[in-house]
Amino acid sequence: MLRDRYVEVRNQSAAICSPLQTEDYVVQPVADVSPPKWHLGHSTWFFETFILMPHLIGYQVFDPMYNFVFNSYYESVGARVVRTDRGNLSRPSVEDIYRYRAYVDRHMISFLETTLLDTGLTALVELGLNHEQQHQELLYTDIKYILGHNPLFPIYAGQFDFGQTNPQPNEMVHFGEGVYEIGFRGEGFCFDNELGRHKVYLGSFGISKKLVTNGEYLQFMLAGGYTDFSYWHSEGWDWLRQHGITAPLYWHKIDDRWMYYTLGGLKELQLDEPVCHVSFYEASAFAAWKGMRLPTEAEWEVASGRIDWGQRWEWTDSAYLPYPGFKKETGAIGEYNGKFMVSQMVLRGASVATPQGHSRNTYRNFFHPRHQWQFSGIRLATWS
Amino acid sequence: MLRDRYVEVRNQSAAICSPLQTEDYVVQPVADVSPPKWHLGHSTWFFETFILMPHLIGYQVFDPMYNFVFNSYYESVGARVVRTDRGNLSRPSVEDIYRYRAYVDRHMISFLETTLLDTGLTALVELGLNHEQQHQELLYTDIKYILGHNPLFPIYAGQFDFGQTNPQPNEMVHFGEGVYEIGFRGEGFCFDNELGRHKVYLGSFGISKKLVTNGEYLQFMLAGGYTDFSYWHSEGWDWLRQHGITAPLYWHKIDDRWMYYTLGGLKELQLDEPVCHVSFYEASAFAAWKGMRLPTEAEWEVASGRIDWGQRWEWTDSAYLPYPGFKKETGAIGEYNGKFMVSQMVLRGASVATPQGHSRNTYRNFFHPRHQWQFSGIRLATWS
Amino acid sequence: MLRDRYVEVRNQSAAICSPLQTEDYVVQPVADVSPPKWHLGHSTWFFETFILMPHLIGYQVFDPMYNFVFNSYYESVGARVVRTDRGNLSRPSVEDIYRYRAYVDRHMISFLETTLLDTGLTALVELGLNHEQQHQELLYTDIKYILGHNPLFPIYAGQFDFGQTNPQPNEMVHFGEGVYEIGFRGEGFCFDNELGRHKVYLGSFGISKKLVTNGEYLQFMLAGGYTDFSYWHSEGWDWLRQHGITAPLYWHKIDDRWMYYTLGGLKELQLDEPVCHVSFYEASAFAAWKGMRLPTEAEWEVASGRIDWGQRWEWTDSAYLPYPGFKKETGAIGEYNGKFMVSQMVLRGASVATPQGHSRNTYRNFFHPRHQWQFSGIRLATWS
Amino acid sequence: MLRDRYVEVRNQSAAICSPLQTEDYVVQPVADVSPPKWHLGHSTWFFETFILMPHLIGYQVFDPMYNFVFNSYYESVGARVVRTDRGNLSRPSVEDIYRYRAYVDRHMISFLETTLLDTGLTALVELGLNHEQQHQELLYTDIKYILGHNPLFPIYAGQFDFGQTNPQPNEMVHFGEGVYEIGFRGEGFCFDNELGRHKVYLGSFGISKKLVTNGEYLQFMLAGGYTDFSYWHSEGWDWLRQHGITAPLYWHKIDDRWMYYTLGGLKELQLDEPVCHVSFYEASAFAAWKGMRLPTEAEWEVASGRIDWGQRWEWTDSAYLPYPGFKKETGAIGEYNGKFMVSQMVLRGASVATPQGHSRNTYRNFFHPRHQWQFSGIRLATWS
Repeated sequence: MLRDRYVEVRNQSAAICSPLQTEDYVVQPVADVSPPKWHLGHSTWFFETFILMPHLIGYQVFDPMYNFVFNSYYESVGARVVRTDRGNLSRPSVEDIYRYRAYVDRHMISFLETTLLDTGLTALVELGLNHEQQHQELLYTDIKYILGHNPLFPIYAGQFDFGQTNPQPNEMVHFGEGVYEIGFRGEGFCFDNELGRHKVYLGSFGISKKLVTNGEYLQFMLAGGYTDFSYWHSEGWDWLRQHGITAPLYWHKIDDRWMYYTLGGLKELQLDEPVCHVSFYEASAFAAWKGMRLPTEAEWEVASGRIDWGQRWEWTDSAYLPYPGFKKETGAIGEYNGKFMVSQMVLRGASVATPQGHSRNTYRNFFHPRHQWQFSGIRLATWS
Repeated sequence: MLRDRYVEVRNQSAAICSPLQTEDYVVQPVADVSPPKWHLGHSTWFFETFILMPHLIGYQVFDPMYNFVFNSYYESVGARVVRTDRGNLSRPSVEDIYRYRAYVDRHMISFLETTLLDTGLTALVELGLNHEQQHQELLYTDIKYILGHNPLFPIYAGQFDFGQTNPQPNEMVHFGEGVYEIGFRGEGFCFDNELGRHKVYLGSFGISKKLVTNGEYLQFMLAGGYTDFSYWHSEGWDWLRQHGITAPLYWHKIDDRWMYYTLGGLKELQLDEPVCHVSFYEASAFAAWKGMRLPTEAEWEVASGRIDWGQRWEWTDSAYLPYPGFKKETGAIGEYNGKFMVSQMVLRGASVATPQGHSRNTYRNFFHPRHQWQFSGIRLATWS
Repeated sequence: MLRDRYVEVRNQSAAICSPLQTEDYVVQPVADVSPPKWHLGHSTWFFETFILMPHLIGYQVFDPMYNFVFNSYYESVGARVVRTDRGNLSRPSVEDIYRYRAYVDRHMISFLETTLLDTGLTALVELGLNHEQQHQELLYTDIKYILGHNPLFPIYAGQFDFGQTNPQPNEMVHFGEGVYEIGFRGEGFCFDNELGRHKVYLGSFGISKKLVTNGEYLQFMLAGGYTDFSYWHSEGWDWLRQHGITAPLYWHKIDDRWMYYTLGGLKELQLDEPVCHVSFYEASAFAAWKGMRLPTEAEWEVASGRIDWGQRWEWTDSAYLPYPGFKKETGAIGEYNGKFMVSQMVLRGASVATPQGHSRNTYRNFFHPRHQWQFSGIRLATWS
Repeated sequence: MLRDRYVEVRNQSAAICSPLQTEDYVVQPVADVSPPKWHLGHSTWFFETFILMPHLIGYQVFDPMYNFVFNSYYESVGARVVRTDRGNLSRPSVEDIYRYRAYVDRHMISFLETTLLDTGLTALVELGLNHEQQHQELLYTDIKYILGHNPLFPIYAGQFDFGQTNPQPNEMVHFGEGVYEIGFRGEGFCFDNELGRHKVYLGSFGISKKLVTNGEYLQFMLAGGYTDFSYWHSEGWDWLRQHGITAPLYWHKIDDRWMYYTLGGLKELQLDEPVCHVSFYEASAFAAWKGMRLPTEAEWEVASGRIDWGQRWEWTDSAYLPYPGFKKETGAIGEYNGKFMVSQMVLRGASVATPQGHSRNTYRNFFHPRHQWQFSGIRLATWS
């Protein structure tokens, strides 16, 4: 039932933040990372703005200024705080934001309990919940960035992102050339960018069953991978030199040992875990060093039933572009996906930070090729 | 004969520069634009470095410092002047560079006349000539930028880029869904990024026979196209606002009339000419305003026999990515194309500035989506 | 007694912060502003580093990482967080920092109660207390910046910075030419930059008894002061245009009325209050518009007995440079003042935010000419 | 006679440029450096704008667009090319600019030959000539920067800036405390910033007879001067680290020998020459390392009769501020000096690049403390 699912998803956001101290909710070390309190407010603002305000008669907004503060990028819904300024705002306080959540939740639950929603409205609530789940994953990645860039290396909790290791040997899975179908099919929820199931022609290809491990990546590093431009895109090589990148994010060489910051604190690097927090440039350079390549998103989707996935978002060599027949929705909801379809790369799969029930083999995640802060890893492919 | 073709292509570069004054060869108003004298030196350096030095016994380099000055991005061939510094170098002088060209040409001609070239070497010379032709097109675009951003609006020559107008009415050409083949096939020269003729599955699509005109684009502007974010990619909207873009490059509203800077000087905007000097963002926003879209590069290539092309490079909605089976060559030549296969969009066709004999329907040009300074235009497509 | 004074000054810092919410301690909207928790930690670090560590036998540092976090600019005392990164650190938490303060205070009080301090050590403790008082003033200015740049305009407390208005008419006080003496003389504390009482030759000058008011400044604005470059330094004019400055900081024109953000919230601008939060550029332009000038610091000091001062730091037209005979102390304490003696202007007087007992007529405050965020105002002078 | 002096000064500018190739006139490697052709045009524009246009009846401007191109910073005389864009302009060509000079010279000479100039106009022509002489010095410094930053290290001419060495031993000259007078006195030309001869009170001081040599400066370098922050202003230390400064400008360590680029080409560093091309930060750090200081401008002027000066502009520890009674002229001429009186340091003396007859012991040169590209050196002083 939608009401129960609403409660469950909303509670999960608060649960993710429960180990935080108040100060951790506030900071924004880089523009790509948002303060946790902003995520909590923004996902709430979505329900207030798109469900309660237009559909709940007599609804009073919690605070009219909050639209200004918690609107992320919806140009059609008025002024907003620029992204890089989010970490400059000490108010609303964390307590105020939880009050805001409680207020909106109370009205949403009452609304869901008493109203017969039509299909469009149901879909909109479902979109709001999936939107919140996306921000739950961002909460993990942003909390990791905030704590992992503090010189005190504070511990968030438990053994959250230690990664699991599959003891089975890796192997290449092969697919023959031909016409395949990709894109969402079925009845449940999906984002608009997955729609338009369509045929693609693929040449024969091989794809590895397992993800690249820390140990394999370390070999690349030891072989001089970060100092030989021939493996890199020109843009990646500039990125690497400009920022002095010599390893994945959160890797620290301390007293000659490779340590890795996790949400459970600094630990020794585990060689058999799948490598994490690499940019597209690094993923691509690693593949070139291996004499292989990254899969396309179509290959990945076709192969998804025969590979182990779910621990790392996997960089593909596909740019984030519209599927055939893609059509932006009208209004603010139409700003959800389509306007980002340039200059980003598709990641497929899911990660340890992805909420349960939020992953599908048609899911199209996307980030800029420079981004390391997601739980992103590498899968290899070959042309035949 | 290769020797004659060498002479012809090389002379053409000098011919393009002949209307210039010495000062015009030197400046670099923005990083994307290179000084004409740099183009002349760099294309010469290619022959010296890749043909004469390794293959002509006893060859003495003209000046060992020139490798430093004229190497563009070949990381494997030593240090180089960073791109943004090219306009800071008053020396070598234009005269010195022409001497350099004459010296290399003398040796190249003698080499071509007296040596039996194997296939690899022939291909390398051919690559050098195609490389020079690419810089000939850049000479036009960069000269236009240099003169067109001078407050005196100097005239380069003639009626070079006035564009031609086809009086016939436009129409949509339709193609059915199915498996098509794209990629280079045949015997002549092509770049490595065109290779690997392969099958693609296309849904049915429509594509316009003619390019979008200035008049049509002006309607978009008058309809508020530059002030309604809903037509734009998020990144494009930021670009537009940050740089205050309100029209294509070289458009100037003077005394309430739209003027257009051409290499023949400022002239009144011709409404029936194909629009030129738009970025991918602008092309895409225009298409969205029309309720249409840009073609993919595969659609374009499939349709190329039935549309009018050759006056403007046409932005496609395809990112510049490797074709199936793409493999970088080893050594410096391998740096030619592959390392740019991220964050850029493909343009198809050719422009008024493309050298004769340098265009093919499989040619994959590529630029960043923000770029306006190429002779770039818009063709529309529909999903069915 | 030094011990009592220590307790009093230290308590005052906590008292200033008592109206804050935890989140307010954390953020850093611009590089010049430090998070309140950083001020609390840094002033504590001073006592730990310069008193307890070298002089209290057996002292255990509270946390060795805190040197890294709370060192501001003492190059001689090891690594430090760069100034612009202070707002990225959620830890140490506010609670941890208060624990740190309590720990250091306990040891300091015990040390002061049980140790017979020599003159040098007494001076060092006194320096630490004056240092803390400087940060108390910065706490006010930085809290104002943090809250005053929040779209919710939160209230800090009371009527703190409303300014007082002296109903008496203003007048010019005149001084004849001759040799005067300036610089600190006496027995109490002063900073090293005030030392070296010395003779200066001053031409005759006039100086206004009272500060420029909001009403007078508004006349300058209405007369086009911000749009006529002739009143401005070239550098000030660039600053104004680059940042779009059209009024002092914290002035907001809302519904055609000038409002002014104070620590007590937004209030209507009071015309008879002394103008506040102007940069040197603005102070200087205002003076030029009046056909007058800013006083030099020597003139100000000579006149200090006959003018009303203490509400605003007053920009002088003196650069911050060493007095004759100035000598940097050796070691970290020597970094206190001397190394800033370039590119800054002297401000004289004191402000509503200056701690009681912390002001002197020989005090040399200094900031960059662009700074508006201090409680800075304008006094006029004439050449005769 | 003014007409002869006009011809002589104007010819000298062309003489300075005569060894240049056309390309050398065009480039602008950094914002502080202007293309030589701009200097030639700008100094001509001064005469056209301030003499011919208002005072020669019937004068036709050479090209109305030139005001846009050659106006440097006179806000009151209309739009202008921003400083950093000067190097982007290939036109007007060098030839056009010489034509512009000839045109203006012809009219100026005719005007001077046939008109009885009043005092104001005579002063204005004299200001124009001194202005041109300032640009003659900048021509030398900018040409040196342009050629000295070219990887080919081209030779300008002769032994221009080799510096002379005085074999006599250095010594300190001492002055007693008391009231002195500084500022221009007399009948010839001076800039407005030198006016207002006035009394200053100086404590007793010592000043070295000779400038610091390369050999002495090298000792500072070998003693770790560039790696010990204690000698540096905080701002200077940031400058040094940000730009990787480890020596004066134009010093190159090649094959373990210190080489020095001069307008006559690269030569071995001469230890007994006065050090050149140091910033204020470097001059000040050197003095601190010696346990001494830089003189103030008043001390320098008082001592000027008893020290050897004229080879290097000498950084003083005086900020560039108005003399008592300073009053900006009205109109564009008033923009000459006053608006720069913030954030810069005074240099006294003259250099090998200063035109003959252009130096005075009251001359107040000024640059930002970071600047190295002038022929700037170091003189030491002590407090008593």
